[in-house]
Amino acid sequence: MKFNVSSGELVKSLSAVAGAVPAKATMPILEMVLFESEDGKLKLSATDLEVTIVEYVSAEIEEEGSVAVPARRLLDALRALPDIPVSFMIDDRFNVVFKTDKGQYRLAGEDGNEFPETPSLTEAVDIETSTGIIRDAIMKTSFAVSTDDLRPAMMGVYFQIGTEQSKVVATDGHRLVKLTLSELKADYEINFIVPDKALNLTSKSLDELECVVSVTDQHVSFKSGNTQIIARLINQQYPNYETVIPRDNDKNMIVGKDELLATVKRVSIFSSSTSKQIRLRLEADELNIKAEDIDMSSEAEERLAAEYADEPLEIGFNARYLADVISNVNDSEVKFEFSTPNRAGIVKPASQEEGKDILMLVMPVMLNTY
Amino acid sequence: MKFNVSSGELVKSLSAVAGAVPAKATMPILEMVLFESEDGKLKLSATDLEVTIVEYVSAEIEEEGSVAVPARRLLDALRALPDIPVSFMIDDRFNVVFKTDKGQYRLAGEDGNEFPETPSLTEAVDIETSTGIIRDAIMKTSFAVSTDDLRPAMMGVYFQIGTEQSKVVATDGHRLVKLTLSELKADYEINFIVPDKALNLTSKSLDELECVVSVTDQHVSFKSGNTQIIARLINQQYPNYETVIPRDNDKNMIVGKDELLATVKRVSIFSSSTSKQIRLRLEADELNIKAEDIDMSSEAEERLAAEYADEPLEIGFNARYLADVISNVNDSEVKFEFSTPNRAGIVKPASQEEGKDILMLVMPVMLNTY
Repeated sequence: MKFNVSSGELVKSLSAVAGAVPAKATMPILEMVLFESEDGKLKLSATDLEVTIVEYVSAEIEEEGSVAVPARRLLDALRALPDIPVSFMIDDRFNVVFKTDKGQYRLAGEDGNEFPETPSLTEAVDIETSTGIIRDAIMKTSFAVSTDDLRPAMMGVYFQIGTEQSKVVATDGHRLVKLTLSELKADYEINFIVPDKALNLTSKSLDELECVVSVTDQHVSFKSGNTQIIARLINQQYPNYETVIPRDNDKNMIVGKDELLATVKRVSIFSSSTSKQIRLRLEADELNIKAEDIDMSSEAEERLAAEYADEPLEIGFNARYLADVISNVNDSEVKFEFSTPNRAGIVKPASQEEGKDILMLVMPVMLNTY
Repeated sequence: MKFNVSSGELVKSLSAVAGAVPAKATMPILEMVLFESEDGKLKLSATDLEVTIVEYVSAEIEEEGSVAVPARRLLDALRALPDIPVSFMIDDRFNVVFKTDKGQYRLAGEDGNEFPETPSLTEAVDIETSTGIIRDAIMKTSFAVSTDDLRPAMMGVYFQIGTEQSKVVATDGHRLVKLTLSELKADYEINFIVPDKALNLTSKSLDELECVVSVTDQHVSFKSGNTQIIARLINQQYPNYETVIPRDNDKNMIVGKDELLATVKRVSIFSSSTSKQIRLRLEADELNIKAEDIDMSSEAEERLAAEYADEPLEIGFNARYLADVISNVNDSEVKFEFSTPNRAGIVKPASQEEGKDILMLVMPVMLNTY
């Protein structure tokens, strides 16, 4: 195999695929990137057997072939170069020699045929959408994905693609996000759970405007321009999250987002470092936030103006979960909907974005009376 | 104790003294900052028993007193506030209550008399100098300080203050820096070793132009404006470093700093990850840098233009130590002086700064012939 490529372009694509290379590989070949010639381009692939990233790079292919190359060392060396032409030459024993006008370098590669095969996506359902919609859906939901191995279904984002609209949902049992997108739809209804790592890489790697999402029984692919991310789906039943969302919420509050977030963070410094419990007291046009740490005998109390005209309510939250949800509100004002102190609080932007209806939810904690 | 202070000014000074608070304190009181009223100002002190930082803050003292306050929690809370006035009130049981127009906070403090006493500096030798000279001396030497507990003398920077000029030296046995400063002098000759942590904090905390260095048998203090750093000296004999510096260096090379540094870093990626060994070959007007990693069967070789007119020489270095030294050269061109492949290489800027003569040295490694 022989090809010439610009170091700058190769670094960009190699960095993108290297996102899939596992930090600790069980098989040495997973620490490598597969280089292949395909239709006059250079195709790079990396995988951790769960997620595969493929990138196409413009290159002058002088001799077809394929080879697996140590990802980290090649990337370190190329990053240390300015943007200059690089000539690669791979011999029969998979030695990778590359030259620039500065010098010559050699790495030991592996037979490209030893590299794990990329999952097939024939017979996939294709959904044509935009990178903007996919990236926005990921950004708004992935913070709530669970990291608890014992509940694998919740370790990904749940996509419920419909023919009229779609729902994108994430929850870890403490928080929940449900995003309803009127612009994301398909010819058939299809539901699937995508692991969080794959979505992270997707939102980082996709760069063109168009995006095609392809779904099979086992895999999902996000393809945009020269980049494709293929992920194994989480093959589990997603919990029936709708039952957790309280319906009759008669207590409504509107409060400024930035001030509320700053207050929650400040007061929480004085809360117990294990429970992070803070207490919200809603009264006419006022929100009082309080925390106490009995072990350290510290406490804090702040008051801020709020639009509230219903009956007084006192409700406890884990400050970290509450702050996470508030900071994901894409508006200058936050709308809260409450029913009783033992039911979830609903958090929304005071005004929804066009076609992107979002509902977030935080579970309350039981207040110890002190 | 009662006082009013601006949160912004308090955060600034508290952040500075918090640098002395140990990450893991053996005594709980070391996690605290001592607040004292002194001459109408607020005096903050923190210590790990090796280094003490003292800061004076403008404040309106309503009632004199002293109290020790948990450093981390107070700093977190103040940092989360905008710059607003804060009123502090400490009761007889050392509860620290502070109020802003946003709310009220309480922390459990301790009796200020329980706080370790700040070392006395009476009978010190004073050296009047500038913060610029001290900071520059620290920056240029501290990278070479040893982290090896077995050689405690080398775990600090050695100051040899003279009546005509002074030397500031650091070495870890692999590298050495000797800085000769014609503008730093005292009425008496005095030599002392300052631990690295204290110097780090000094170069971060000093902010006024003037600096007074005070030295006793046991301690050194750096005082500038409202800030004072007091450190326990390393009470050890500094090694006789002059014997390591080779004298008759008949091979001289001048090479561009940035290009050399980039080349060393790039080539070293292909060296053995344990030895980091690279090989420099000096020939007429050319420097060839080579690395090989037999385990990974990778290698690299680059050539760059250099001013060199002496006999060819091949010498090996640890790339990390060499790169460290080169990156501390404060000039666009680096001058190397060599004698034989088994003696240290001397590294200097091609032109020295006025009054700041610097000599750096890197020990070579034995080249395995392959």
